[in-house]
Parts: sequence; C-alpha cells; structure tokens
Amino acid sequence: MEYQYEQAIEILGRTPATLTALLRGLPEAWTKGAEGPETWSAYDIVGHLLHSEETNWIERARVILEYGEQGSFDSFNRTAMFEKYQDFSLDQLLVAFEQARADNLATLSTLDITSEKLALKGTHPALGTVTLSNLLATWVVHDLNHIGQIVEVMAHQYGEAVGPWSAYLAILTRPILTE
Amino acid sequence: MEYQYEQAIEILGRTPATLTALLRGLPEAWTKGAEGPETWSAYDIVGHLLHSEETNWIERARVILEYGEQGSFDSFNRTAMFEKYQDFSLDQLLVAFEQARADNLATLSTLDITSEKLALKGTHPALGTVTLSNLLATWVVHDLNHIGQIVEVMAHQYGEAVGPWSAYLAILTRPILTE
Repeated sequence: MEYQYEQAIEILGRTPATLTALLRGLPEAWTKGAEGPETWSAYDIVGHLLHSEETNWIERARVILEYGEQGSFDSFNRTAMFEKYQDFSLDQLLVAFEQARADNLATLSTLDITSEKLALKGTHPALGTVTLSNLLATWVVHDLNHIGQIVEVMAHQYGEAVGPWSAYLAILTRPILTE
Repeated sequence: MEYQYEQAIEILGRTPATLTALLRGLPEAWTKGAEGPETWSAYDIVGHLLHSEETNWIERARVILEYGEQGSFDSFNRTAMFEKYQDFSLDQLLVAFEQARADNLATLSTLDITSEKLALKGTHPALGTVTLSNLLATWVVHDLNHIGQIVEVMAHQYGEAVGPWSAYLAILTRPILTE
C-alpha cells in the first residue's frame, strides 16, 4: 500500500509500548543474549532504535524538506549505541526511546506533511534518489524490522531447547535479520 | 540456553500485552492485509495463537505427563481460526487470547513442573520422540515466531513504499515466516 501519514504514525506511536510490553523486566538471559559475535541482543537493538530516533529520521526529513536533492544525509552509525548508551539499563533505554519517539512525532506533526511534500526528493549517499515518502515509510518498516529482530534473537536462545520442533519454527532456521 | 520454567513464563506472560500494544486499534489496512493467497494477516495470526492456546499446549503437556510415549497428541489444525473465530473482531481475539493465556499459565502452575517431569517423553506423530521440556520451550518460541510473522506481514504492506531502502530492510526481502 502507499505511504499515508495517518496510517504510518499509528505504527510509530505504538512501538515504544510494544517494546516495553515485550522486554521490560525480562531476565537478562533473554535480553542480553545475542547470536554470536557481530550480532545484536535485544538490549543492543533497543539502543540502535534510540540512536536512530535521536539522529536519523527527523534530521533526514529536514534535509529533504530544506535542500531537496542538493542536500546530503549525515552518515548514520548503525553501531553507535554500543558506546553511546553503555551505562544505560534496558529500562532506561526503553524510557528514553519512548520519550524520543514522542518528541519526534510531535516534531513531525509540525512539518505539515502534505502529499506535495511527500513527493519531494533527496539524495541518499548509497541508494541514490529517494523521496520523503520513502523515508517516512522506511521509518515504519525499520521499527517492524527491529521488533522482528528482537523476537528472533530471543527465540534463538531456545534454538536447542525446542528439540525436534525446530523443524516447524522458521524463525530458528532461516537467515537471521541484521540491519 | 536450557529451558527453565521461570524464564519461560516471563515470555509467555508478556505476549498478550505485547500483541495488544502492537495491534489494538490499528487500521485494518495494517491488520487485515496478508502477503497473498495462503498467507496470514496479523488478524489471522492472533486467531491462530488463540486456537493454539485453547487446544494445543496444555493438552499436549497433559498427554506427556499422563501417558508418556504411549500417549498420542491430537492433531493440531493450523488454520482452524478461519472458521472458528470468523465473527470475532481483532480486539475480541486479543482479549480472548489474554484470558486463555492467563488460564493456561494458571493451569501450568498447578502441574508442578519439576526437572524430573521436564525430562518425560512423549511421541509427536511426525517428529517422533519429544520431551516435556521441548514442548514447553516450543510454546515460547511459537509466540516469538508469530510476533515476528505479524511484524513481517505488516512491514510487507510497505514493501513498495520504502523505495530503494528495501535493500537495507531484510524483513522485506528474505523468505517469509509461515508456521
């Protein structure tokens, strides 16, 4: 379906509560386990979502709105969370993400996203020409992607425990989600 | 990691609230869209989780506890929800799932799941010998698998809308989750 502002913010507005319901207060055996080196735990993924919220979406929307294809996006450091939030507990990350998301949705509402603005173009350093609509749809799918990554990495902690049932649980056997 | 009762119910107890936070009140464009014929929408998946709750996990645990490898599991109809809950709204499914899960966790707590019981064996009609521990771990991973499937089918509704960013969003491009 096409990007629609009202439908999109229905998802964006729910993500903090979804992550909090899923993760808050869970034993660290679930939240700190990754799949091996260079993979992320649920804790790491929430940090990545917070960092994205603080540096990525609204800034890139502003670049498109103000500079169009002549603007350039700041590069986004996918792994900045490892250092930036190293003293944060998972609960602190969840609270900070909820606040950052609320702030960003408030900011987004002031940008008056019309269908004309949605068609405005920008230049992604690797992907080339993108539209504001592409960016805002990606914000939504990025949330869903990382919720999927969180449940996947948690499921993998029981990859052995399920025994023969792994044959029926595709989340355990297909290529893992990364970005 | 190995199955542990206390850790496992931490996940099982959170799933209803996670699904409610993610889905309650969302426009049907998100919750009723599937990926094509023979695939499930978020609404369908919640129905499948409810049906599993009503017929599968506790019943199979009882078969193992009472009959061991001589017992046989009733076959599980993965698609029973299409008829069984056809008059339910998504909100009704979410409420019914929350209640059924609470009832099942209360029942599970009365079964006194010791490490000796976890090692008891049963016979799966297709998978062969399984343990109670395998079954109870599968209950957890089944939740996580279907949360992953829900965010995946919702993400796919924006598969075109993200434009070039689909290259960075593995949830859009890898083989989809089914059961």
